[in-house]
Amino acid sequence: MAGGGDTPDLVAGVSNASALGFIGAAYLTPEQIASTAADVRAKSTRPFGINLFAPQPKTRTTPEDPDALASAMLKCLAPYYDELGVPVPTELPSPTDIFDEQLSATLESGASCLSFTFGLLSPAAVAAIKNKGLFLIGTATTVEEAVQLEKSDVDAIVTQGSEAGGHRGTFLGDFAQAMVGTISLVPQIVDAVRLPVIASGGIMDGRGIVAALALGAQAVQMGTAFLTCHEAGIPDAYKEAILNAHEDQTRLTRAFSGRPARGIVNRFMTEIEPDPPHETIPPFPLQNSLTRPLRTAAARQGRSEFLSLWSGQGMRLAQRESAKELIERLTREMDEVMSELNRLR
Amino acid sequence: MAGGGDTPDLVAGVSNASALGFIGAAYLTPEQIASTAADVRAKSTRPFGINLFAPQPKTRTTPEDPDALASAMLKCLAPYYDELGVPVPTELPSPTDIFDEQLSATLESGASCLSFTFGLLSPAAVAAIKNKGLFLIGTATTVEEAVQLEKSDVDAIVTQGSEAGGHRGTFLGDFAQAMVGTISLVPQIVDAVRLPVIASGGIMDGRGIVAALALGAQAVQMGTAFLTCHEAGIPDAYKEAILNAHEDQTRLTRAFSGRPARGIVNRFMTEIEPDPPHETIPPFPLQNSLTRPLRTAAARQGRSEFLSLWSGQGMRLAQRESAKELIERLTREMDEVMSELNRLR
Repeated sequence: MAGGGDTPDLVAGVSNASALGFIGAAYLTPEQIASTAADVRAKSTRPFGINLFAPQPKTRTTPEDPDALASAMLKCLAPYYDELGVPVPTELPSPTDIFDEQLSATLESGASCLSFTFGLLSPAAVAAIKNKGLFLIGTATTVEEAVQLEKSDVDAIVTQGSEAGGHRGTFLGDFAQAMVGTISLVPQIVDAVRLPVIASGGIMDGRGIVAALALGAQAVQMGTAFLTCHEAGIPDAYKEAILNAHEDQTRLTRAFSGRPARGIVNRFMTEIEPDPPHETIPPFPLQNSLTRPLRTAAARQGRSEFLSLWSGQGMRLAQRESAKELIERLTREMDEVMSELNRLR
Repeated sequence: MAGGGDTPDLVAGVSNASALGFIGAAYLTPEQIASTAADVRAKSTRPFGINLFAPQPKTRTTPEDPDALASAMLKCLAPYYDELGVPVPTELPSPTDIFDEQLSATLESGASCLSFTFGLLSPAAVAAIKNKGLFLIGTATTVEEAVQLEKSDVDAIVTQGSEAGGHRGTFLGDFAQAMVGTISLVPQIVDAVRLPVIASGGIMDGRGIVAALALGAQAVQMGTAFLTCHEAGIPDAYKEAILNAHEDQTRLTRAFSGRPARGIVNRFMTEIEPDPPHETIPPFPLQNSLTRPLRTAAARQGRSEFLSLWSGQGMRLAQRESAKELIERLTREMDEVMSELNRLR
């Protein structure tokens, strides 16, 4: 979970409860990766992981005239900056890809595991990671992406079902058509690759975990379920939004970051990206930079109508509890589900 | 499965193999319902069910100027009629709701079970069904729809996950936002109602069935898995399309019937409903009537580019086999999945 949910307390709490906590490091500088990992290591001696975004092809991230596009978007965002009492940025950001530096910091961080989304890593990056002995996990939203990841020599594959909150990992083909539900996606990827599969998307409790294992997954990855944990660093207004939302109140949006992501529908999403959408939303990561100061101010002011409320579709199952309580509950629920399945047999 | 898949051979074959076969009767006249049910009874003494579409509110089905809309659409369809060598219909259809007559025929058909989609039944209809002793099943795509169905006194609820092929059952709120994946939808509906839940959407094999039971469903409903059975009455070109398609090659479309449905992307869908879509596609059932002669001719000529290729997202798991072989395989696979889950425990 990039963007503040994954405090060192949460990552260490998850790992201390015998699960594998991850630092979402995509937006962190190399220095921040080092210091966050040091914080986690100070709170836990158990293994932990780091998640990064794969470097993006320039064609996907660089519009023809980025300055014009950014100026137009800032004009459109100005009233919201005003409403929050924040000055409109005058210097336009020039996003630079710092993946190589993030990777170096990750390799020295003490993390046991590196997962990534949004594409494939270069053979050189894969070799460096393997050389350091880290377990490498890629993210697929389709069978073809999983096959490509297997060829690129990852150790395991996260399947991102359409139910998942946050950014879509799709890197081949069309985002909308790659919205495949977990119950369809997992068995089809399991049949197509020899690697272990880690299911994600819509898994919120012991029922979802046993379901994923029945589909052939070896493990699950959960995001939204941990966002309402006490240790999660998101604003309380965001936690409240998850706890009060319904399964039919999210959609994909490019309004916040420029890249399709599932979030709870709110005012900013509706106004910046009506249906049908403007063509003028700059691509990721440019749009992300243009809206970041807004979101930071909104977080401080508890204004959830301006926050990116990333959430999966299972949010009615979210609870306020500690990471330890959540993981103990999941274990208990899995046991109850298995007893019930055996009773039905 | 409305639209020809569900031959009496398939329905009886499913019921004879100890599952519950259904006649998709939404497009059948009362006389056809009676004769199809008689055919099924001649081939099986086991229970079977009938599926109908709930009557639609006039506001949803009647455009302001249906004749103008139909004429415009027929002009747009004319080249396709030409290409298939079929005359463009000159008399515009005037869709009439025959639900009451279909219901009467169903009540006298010998069916043990009546399921419906697209809404709620009237209290009078529910009373008549209960009075005859039929088991009544409604279809929900959200928690709120399930709650409304429970209040309307159905006996069980089918949850239609976003993975499902064919028409969306959504009757409250927005179609796009009600695309909730099975792994999220089932447990949230199980928690919200006391009725038994029947999971559907993306379930294609024993792994999917055990997953659905783990999520809290009491049973599953499967459509696409049966479409490639020997007994299914769809054109072979349609079966081939399912067997060759990938999980990221479907989308929702209104092109064929006027109501959002998931099908394999083909030429007709792309040309009649580009992205963003024309506003001129008439609502269901008018568009359905306008395209039906085309689809009938295309089926005869084996031209899958003009067929409504309804399919769920799990099509890579579809196989050519008999209904009996499929159901025996499902039973075997469920057993294997349970053994594996118990081994992991």
